[in-house]
Amino acid sequence: MLPRTIDIRDERVYLIDQLLIPHELKIVEITSLEGMYTAIQTMVVRGAPAIGVSGAAGMALFIEHTDNISLNDIRKAGEYLKSSRPTAVNLAWAVDHIIAKCVDTRDVNRIKLQIWDWVTTMADEDEAINRVMGKHGAKHLIRTLQKDKITVHTHCNAGSLATVYWGTALGVIRELHAQHALKQVIADETRPRLQGGKITSWELMQDHIPVTVIADNMAAHFMREGLSDVVVVGADRIAANGDAANKIGTYMLAVAARHHNVPFYVAAPWSTFDLELESGEDIPIEERDISEVTHIDGHLVMPKGVAVMNPAFDVTPAELITGIITETGVLTGDLAAAIMHKRKTL
Amino acid sequence: MLPRTIDIRDERVYLIDQLLIPHELKIVEITSLEGMYTAIQTMVVRGAPAIGVSGAAGMALFIEHTDNISLNDIRKAGEYLKSSRPTAVNLAWAVDHIIAKCVDTRDVNRIKLQIWDWVTTMADEDEAINRVMGKHGAKHLIRTLQKDKITVHTHCNAGSLATVYWGTALGVIRELHAQHALKQVIADETRPRLQGGKITSWELMQDHIPVTVIADNMAAHFMREGLSDVVVVGADRIAANGDAANKIGTYMLAVAARHHNVPFYVAAPWSTFDLELESGEDIPIEERDISEVTHIDGHLVMPKGVAVMNPAFDVTPAELITGIITETGVLTGDLAAAIMHKRKTL
Repeated sequence: MLPRTIDIRDERVYLIDQLLIPHELKIVEITSLEGMYTAIQTMVVRGAPAIGVSGAAGMALFIEHTDNISLNDIRKAGEYLKSSRPTAVNLAWAVDHIIAKCVDTRDVNRIKLQIWDWVTTMADEDEAINRVMGKHGAKHLIRTLQKDKITVHTHCNAGSLATVYWGTALGVIRELHAQHALKQVIADETRPRLQGGKITSWELMQDHIPVTVIADNMAAHFMREGLSDVVVVGADRIAANGDAANKIGTYMLAVAARHHNVPFYVAAPWSTFDLELESGEDIPIEERDISEVTHIDGHLVMPKGVAVMNPAFDVTPAELITGIITETGVLTGDLAAAIMHKRKTL
Repeated sequence: MLPRTIDIRDERVYLIDQLLIPHELKIVEITSLEGMYTAIQTMVVRGAPAIGVSGAAGMALFIEHTDNISLNDIRKAGEYLKSSRPTAVNLAWAVDHIIAKCVDTRDVNRIKLQIWDWVTTMADEDEAINRVMGKHGAKHLIRTLQKDKITVHTHCNAGSLATVYWGTALGVIRELHAQHALKQVIADETRPRLQGGKITSWELMQDHIPVTVIADNMAAHFMREGLSDVVVVGADRIAANGDAANKIGTYMLAVAARHHNVPFYVAAPWSTFDLELESGEDIPIEERDISEVTHIDGHLVMPKGVAVMNPAFDVTPAELITGIITETGVLTGDLAAAIMHKRKTL
């Protein structure tokens, strides 16, 4: 069984070092705000829900270790931590959640007493949410696809390793597998960082879930051959109209899915929604270092000095999304209306 | 200036070793039929027109070095050589062309006297065809796109290094550049073997043609942003109805191009057409070793033992192709009818 991606025990914070997956499973302890900033920025920990909880844990480390702390210090630390990665809203959501609790509590001593409970609760809730989301998603796919065994196509890693435990898109896949309704997973390798080839494949192999890796550009070819029954991916930020930012390549996969009438689902908790944003056009897209493209595992594979572009995310417009799987159920049809409706009941 | 990809001098055969590009420009001599089989199979030389001429040169080496040679020996050698790579029809076309000349000549001594002339002529014609194709293509794109400067998106390498010299798709690009009508080239890196990232980028940088490399899965994102004015790719085999087999990922790029109303062109000489085949469904798709996906430059990047699929090509249906650029002009509209019409005049 996989360990938790983020483990908080006795007021200490442990992460799986995802830079070493699939070659080594190593747990590293993070001991400071700055250490957490670096872990998130360099992608020792990645995945929208995982960096959310990691951000909260980073705040706890800061609060724990700072004497004479003020609310202003806490807010500043939060801004710093949120700047480590701009696209996934879960990081901002989790950090702001901790700051709001600090503001409500006011008394610094009480904050210091309660901070680890808040973070532990957030971590436990992340897993619980994923498990519920998985059940909603699996039930919906079994009902709508009407297939004995479903082949699920996914991109990047929206798995246990992108969350505290269980996963969003891979949570749905785990539940399908548990119900004997999964045929196999097609995992796009997901250039440039190969999270699909390295992390999704490894994570599913640990749990004995059948997975086949393909290069990203093979997806349309296999869809045309009828291999993929459905696409399920995660998200880093979803706007009020249902436009969803996710790992670069998701949009191209969605275009291919539409061309082949393959249903396309996003699995994400409500903490991934940014209802301040009308549409995906307003989502900031992180540009990462071009060495992620020119180098693979530290090895230069292209001409020195070549021009490269490396946006880390793209936006899939709501019209290409069949449904959004959340912890409160599956949104389908007019996504903007469904989101507006749910918002009122949250 | 780039050297010729295949250089035939004094009855000796030299190839650029493309496995070393972009890190080293090394010319290797091929001295036997078996040596040429291995060079084609391992992709020391690759690209449909280039492996065609290489195949012819391999036949010349065999004929040159075999005593008491018979037409049957020549036919057997041809079958052996053609089996090195199954998808590109140019290899079969060139080998069969040499065999037909041998059959016509009958006299083994005269074959031995003339074989190098035949191969040299074929190599020179390849370059000449590419230059004419480039002119037809550039003229057509300048006329139809009506843009001052054109950004051309390409996949894999249909360049000088995929031919004897100048290139098919990159021949069109070279001609646009010569006419000051090229803005830049967007080169898909082209997993798994990264021919775009390694070879197309290097080749264009040698000629000071502006090129930006992207991961394959970014293509749709940049098309949505309006970056690509047109897609021009090569082909390995074109069926009578215009369906075109090309490097894996071409089909997904064509689907994305259609979704964004980006015109999509294939540039290929008539030797790439296989008019025996009614449609692309009949084109054999080479499956290559999965280590091409799991390993990059010999380095394992995925979990040991992971399941992977690695088709080397896919088929883009004629309905997604705006036009086919050939040495006799640009076919557009109903491609099956245009091919049928041209066939009668060839």
